[in-house]
Amino acid sequence: MKPHFVPAELAEFRSIIRLPVQWGDQDAFGHVNNVVYFRWFESSRIAYFEQSGINKPMETAGLGPILASIKCNYRQQIVYPDVVLIGAKITGFRNSSLTMVHMLYSERLARIAADSDSVIVAFDYQANISRRIPDPARSVIDAFEAQR
Amino acid sequence: MKPHFVPAELAEFRSIIRLPVQWGDQDAFGHVNNVVYFRWFESSRIAYFEQSGINKPMETAGLGPILASIKCNYRQQIVYPDVVLIGAKITGFRNSSLTMVHMLYSERLARIAADSDSVIVAFDYQANISRRIPDPARSVIDAFEAQR
Amino acid sequence: MKPHFVPAELAEFRSIIRLPVQWGDQDAFGHVNNVVYFRWFESSRIAYFEQSGINKPMETAGLGPILASIKCNYRQQIVYPDVVLIGAKITGFRNSSLTMVHMLYSERLARIAADSDSVIVAFDYQANISRRIPDPARSVIDAFEAQR
Amino acid sequence: MKPHFVPAELAEFRSIIRLPVQWGDQDAFGHVNNVVYFRWFESSRIAYFEQSGINKPMETAGLGPILASIKCNYRQQIVYPDVVLIGAKITGFRNSSLTMVHMLYSERLARIAADSDSVIVAFDYQANISRRIPDPARSVIDAFEAQR
Repeated sequence: MKPHFVPAELAEFRSIIRLPVQWGDQDAFGHVNNVVYFRWFESSRIAYFEQSGINKPMETAGLGPILASIKCNYRQQIVYPDVVLIGAKITGFRNSSLTMVHMLYSERLARIAADSDSVIVAFDYQANISRRIPDPARSVIDAFEAQR
Repeated sequence: MKPHFVPAELAEFRSIIRLPVQWGDQDAFGHVNNVVYFRWFESSRIAYFEQSGINKPMETAGLGPILASIKCNYRQQIVYPDVVLIGAKITGFRNSSLTMVHMLYSERLARIAADSDSVIVAFDYQANISRRIPDPARSVIDAFEAQR
Repeated sequence: MKPHFVPAELAEFRSIIRLPVQWGDQDAFGHVNNVVYFRWFESSRIAYFEQSGINKPMETAGLGPILASIKCNYRQQIVYPDVVLIGAKITGFRNSSLTMVHMLYSERLARIAADSDSVIVAFDYQANISRRIPDPARSVIDAFEAQR
Repeated sequence: MKPHFVPAELAEFRSIIRLPVQWGDQDAFGHVNNVVYFRWFESSRIAYFEQSGINKPMETAGLGPILASIKCNYRQQIVYPDVVLIGAKITGFRNSSLTMVHMLYSERLARIAADSDSVIVAFDYQANISRRIPDPARSVIDAFEAQR
């Protein structure tokens, strides 16, 4: 879902999704379980891929994205009820991988509650190896990120 | 989140929540996993309790709700991206339990994708036994359901 | 994983799996969340299909199983740490569907903590309709269940 | 659950748990979803805390652990059916935090499928601030790790 407003903390993010916290996202500590943040980042990552238009040049090259690593820094505890905004941004390319950053904003807390760094590899699922990210995919992202 | 519109199929439901399908809700069959529906019903159940005002008379009586049974009838497969509306309604009281019905509507399919019956017991977590649902709790629900 | 021992309560079940409760299966009430039981039943259902040999005659007929409905009766609260045994049994056939029953046993409580009824349909994913369960699939199940 | 054997890759880990992959851990790509690894690391982290004996000196000091950050490096795709072994090890202490490393071994692949770095903070849930990890807690860990 699209955010109704974009807080200053997410101003640099072209792709932002808005998700409600579900009661069942909480664990026995009574706050949102650490694992749930990664589900939210995944949703943000996929929304970014769709919105940016990178899926088409990747598929044309016979490639799909595969998550190589992801890290979350937990800054604030989140509790139900709340609504979170998650921004995604590609911050760099290497030969066969790209780096994606997320910021997760809590509407209830009115501040960033977590952030994330990740590395995503261009993967040839047929040959089962990583490949160079094709130039058209890089151009699509450059254009998308330049719009903000 | 509140629904933007209420389809005719949910017209009889006073409490309706709206949740986005997440990509990760899908399983290896490429559709939303059967387990996820129960997370959605749980979110609907909790929203109903909050919106109806039943929590206060239950807590006053030292009681909390506990799920005794729940059933889901799957009518349509759901795939990402989609947004679902889930309605909740209390359809009857017995001595120490109540029956709740859910209807789950897919915005993409524009139809009911699943429904659910459940039984919820008034539970004394201190004494670890079920208790009669107090009259004030029944009155609150009668008034809430009458509003539609 | 295979059970180390079979309690009397599961003596009638030919297919039993053994799963550890994970800490994160618990919710803010401090017990295993109601949704997790359905993940366990799913694992039991899939183990049954594999162990019974029904997958092959179904695939030969171009059919796959699809869950039409499932119900859980919660009898006991489960908390971490614990290990559960889940039995699955096919209790009847109709034209295009079968009924499966589960019993879920808690090793810590040394008793049944939940049970489940479900209906599974033989589905032609190509034609997107249900089909009669082929006779070889029925025979395989009859033979499998007769072994206990 | 305890592992039946300890592969050489986990020889340096005093705390190892063994968990079955569930079919429903897989996503629409047909492999175990990236989020599930963090649930496994959580289970390993909690088992380590229990097995090492660190919980008692922490509780005595009025402290509980809180996850500050965690990273996963995905090395191999995991598919059902499989069983994974997850080792946990504390690799260092700072004033109010400790670092924990995990290695995740796939029995099917007979190799490490993922590893993880994390930072855990000693948290005073009453005062809502982090505190120095008490010396008895450090001694307990030093003794536990020295046993391998």
